[in-house]
Amino acid sequence: MTLTITLGQLADTLGATLSGPESLAITGLATLQEAGPGQLSFLANRQYRKFLDESQAAAVLITAEDAEGFTGNAVIVPDPYLAYARISHLFDPKPKAVAGIHPSAVVAEDAQVDESASVGAFAVIESGARIAANVTIGAHCFVGARCVIGEGGWLAPRVTLYHDVTIGKRVVIQSGAVIGGEGFGFATEKGIWQKIAQIGGVTLGDDVEIGVNTAVDRGALSDTRIGNGVKLDNQIQIAHNVQVGDHTAMAACVGISGSTRIGKHCMIAGGVGMVGHIDVCDNVFVSGMTMVTRSITEPGGYSSGTAMQPLAEWRKSAARIRQLDDMSKRLQQLEKRVDTVTSGGQPASEG
Amino acid sequence: MTLTITLGQLADTLGATLSGPESLAITGLATLQEAGPGQLSFLANRQYRKFLDESQAAAVLITAEDAEGFTGNAVIVPDPYLAYARISHLFDPKPKAVAGIHPSAVVAEDAQVDESASVGAFAVIESGARIAANVTIGAHCFVGARCVIGEGGWLAPRVTLYHDVTIGKRVVIQSGAVIGGEGFGFATEKGIWQKIAQIGGVTLGDDVEIGVNTAVDRGALSDTRIGNGVKLDNQIQIAHNVQVGDHTAMAACVGISGSTRIGKHCMIAGGVGMVGHIDVCDNVFVSGMTMVTRSITEPGGYSSGTAMQPLAEWRKSAARIRQLDDMSKRLQQLEKRVDTVTSGGQPASEG
Amino acid sequence: MTLTITLGQLADTLGATLSGPESLAITGLATLQEAGPGQLSFLANRQYRKFLDESQAAAVLITAEDAEGFTGNAVIVPDPYLAYARISHLFDPKPKAVAGIHPSAVVAEDAQVDESASVGAFAVIESGARIAANVTIGAHCFVGARCVIGEGGWLAPRVTLYHDVTIGKRVVIQSGAVIGGEGFGFATEKGIWQKIAQIGGVTLGDDVEIGVNTAVDRGALSDTRIGNGVKLDNQIQIAHNVQVGDHTAMAACVGISGSTRIGKHCMIAGGVGMVGHIDVCDNVFVSGMTMVTRSITEPGGYSSGTAMQPLAEWRKSAARIRQLDDMSKRLQQLEKRVDTVTSGGQPASEG
Repeated sequence: MTLTITLGQLADTLGATLSGPESLAITGLATLQEAGPGQLSFLANRQYRKFLDESQAAAVLITAEDAEGFTGNAVIVPDPYLAYARISHLFDPKPKAVAGIHPSAVVAEDAQVDESASVGAFAVIESGARIAANVTIGAHCFVGARCVIGEGGWLAPRVTLYHDVTIGKRVVIQSGAVIGGEGFGFATEKGIWQKIAQIGGVTLGDDVEIGVNTAVDRGALSDTRIGNGVKLDNQIQIAHNVQVGDHTAMAACVGISGSTRIGKHCMIAGGVGMVGHIDVCDNVFVSGMTMVTRSITEPGGYSSGTAMQPLAEWRKSAARIRQLDDMSKRLQQLEKRVDTVTSGGQPASEG
Repeated sequence: MTLTITLGQLADTLGATLSGPESLAITGLATLQEAGPGQLSFLANRQYRKFLDESQAAAVLITAEDAEGFTGNAVIVPDPYLAYARISHLFDPKPKAVAGIHPSAVVAEDAQVDESASVGAFAVIESGARIAANVTIGAHCFVGARCVIGEGGWLAPRVTLYHDVTIGKRVVIQSGAVIGGEGFGFATEKGIWQKIAQIGGVTLGDDVEIGVNTAVDRGALSDTRIGNGVKLDNQIQIAHNVQVGDHTAMAACVGISGSTRIGKHCMIAGGVGMVGHIDVCDNVFVSGMTMVTRSITEPGGYSSGTAMQPLAEWRKSAARIRQLDDMSKRLQQLEKRVDTVTSGGQPASEG
Repeated sequence: MTLTITLGQLADTLGATLSGPESLAITGLATLQEAGPGQLSFLANRQYRKFLDESQAAAVLITAEDAEGFTGNAVIVPDPYLAYARISHLFDPKPKAVAGIHPSAVVAEDAQVDESASVGAFAVIESGARIAANVTIGAHCFVGARCVIGEGGWLAPRVTLYHDVTIGKRVVIQSGAVIGGEGFGFATEKGIWQKIAQIGGVTLGDDVEIGVNTAVDRGALSDTRIGNGVKLDNQIQIAHNVQVGDHTAMAACVGISGSTRIGKHCMIAGGVGMVGHIDVCDNVFVSGMTMVTRSITEPGGYSSGTAMQPLAEWRKSAARIRQLDDMSKRLQQLEKRVDTVTSGGQPASEG
């Protein structure tokens, strides 16, 4: 649990310039305000520079520019936040899974599980599934028939993959996530909903991360597709036939309706909803809790909603919004009347 | 896995008129754009008619009207989407459960499980539960004490039913759904929340579908009730004492607060929220992400929220909304001033 | 299942004044409208007083004031709703867990489980975990390495705790909740997301309740912290490093972004979203589906969003909102023109 690594080793790992003793032992990571002896910190955001000089950190990941005048131990890197990201894994207390299949797991005879893979207690792996090298399948996971999990994948305890889910390399899936659920497909017959079988599967690219309790539904006919490097936070809903482009990230509680296609390198903030059957182009940013009701064809930022107000003021605003159409008409009428006044004998001010 | 059925058999199943060879083998379903040889497609939406002539589909489910002039193989039906819905189940690759109780399952001695039912690995069935004929209980399911599951039900892996949940016939519940959780019931005592035991249960009607990770809380005193044919998509929250009328559908991420009653044949779009203790009448449509803050007594469509704008424009709109009350007052004042001007010597334009 | 208690015993338990026969047997609880013989009811809300006289309840929890003129059996208490909350637990049909570890559970050798604790079927308890007295761990629960669960805790079936989650006394966690998932932490490197290990844990105070399918992410460096007496409803997302003050309650579907700090005794209604890195002071009420985009420094109520309208009216409002900036400018221009008119020869009406 308590890893110790020297400052010199860390600098080597990062290819960084070290201003401080190589042999100094580093036992953990912390923010500038909270770091104590033995802990490495980082200065990634200028607004925290005020905490730098008084920090108790053993050393700080810092840019050359910010290091000027700093008298503490410095590990000088071009991007301290990225350096912190890399180093963080050295100090991760997450238990490492042991290769092999837990005796309680139920694995179909014709499933293929690589010898280096780890399968946890009470996991179920169904017929025809293939688990590649160095994959971790947590306790209570369910891996449906014919699923494929690429090498280096990590499934937290209690992840459910329905049948025919294909997952790339190094994919991380958090607890409670469900991949391949039957999408919301119904035809109406005289007001009664008739279920449509969801025949497609789900394809996740390489380096995808899926958050806690997030749902990605299987396709109605062909696969729902999540591109390489896509990061989905917790409590997200991805409906059937959705396509998400490479390296797009979505924060928590987003809901994407069926058959919508989202481009590459988009950032979708928390609580955003998108209607179905629209296209969102690459490099779009959508702010929190926005309702996306139409396709977006130009990169850039998009929003909906109103700004928060104290309750009493909000009540007035909300009431006025309902009067807006009336206000607009009155404004127009008033303009006409003033036009009449100013043109009808009264000189208008020019310019 | 690879079902083959002839076009003639499909036409018979649907009671359709066939324009094409009866013996043609159909091996799958696909959209008009994606269908290849051996695949059946459908034309349900006029906007896809442009893909009809160039489609590689072996045959197409189509109306008589749309079939005019079409030279390919046609299965003529009054409602192609509904026909597709029916046919889709023939091609569903979902593994069929085998009757019987998996040896790893833990079933209470006094629970009743029909011989034709299937109980998956690591399922737990508690005291007094009753599982009817042809029910599938997936792996990792938990069926609480005294639950009743009507015939033909299908529970995906990892569904949780607390105690005293009563489920009708042919009900489908997707992974991660939790039926009968303890609702959010607390009384305050000097700012401290005191829990109220949730004594009621949950009743689901026949032909209900519950989506992935959806929660339906148990009633505080009597049951939370979901009517016949109700379809709930993924990530939905149904609070205690809610009543949902027959054949109402809710898209993903909807939240319904406690004791609210929703009528029959309503359609609640994704992300809608409803406050508690209100009544929504039959045949109401609520658009996506609307906040329903009062009862609805007239059928029809309802909405709240603002339309999406590019970020810079949205900032202006949001700022203006906060000025709306002021704008309204200024408009009123201006009207008075113009009234004064026009009546005080200056002739107003009549009409 | 069918508890019977006399009216006298109930009055004693509550320290209430009884107006009715001590020996009357009470077998259940119900609302005034639904109560039948043998059932106790309560009058907590004046709007239900109209149901009092015709109620079939065997007796009613009621204030002295409301009891005036009431001829039925009355259990007179200062706060009937609170009295009902206390009594409710006597009639809870929830099965009681039996002390001991189910033979199917997988418990690490070095985990400590108190003899009085109950561990359900297929539960997994990892290395170094400590389970205190009278704790219930439901079936299918996963308790990660080094987790600590304080005495009297109750985990419903299928709760997941990642490693290093510390839980106070009498904490209730509903099914599907995930505590300690890896928060959404990534650094970007040329448009590619690089994962940051989430090294911190989660600390839950005493008397916390966590709802169905709610997620509380672990801290990036130090712990995510949920204070004493906090109640979180279903489907909530709490991101990494969030701090929630004592006795704050959140209704369902709330999303709190990373590093946001919420004060004590706040009430956050359903569907609210909060951006990250903000502070909300004590005693704040946020109405349903509000987007909180900045820190709140004054107690009181806050809202955003627009009021629901019939669809046709809403379309007009939504269109007008997009014209607001233009309307505002036209209003300003008109004011100037009217100023010119009234000052340029035409006497303005004084006052």
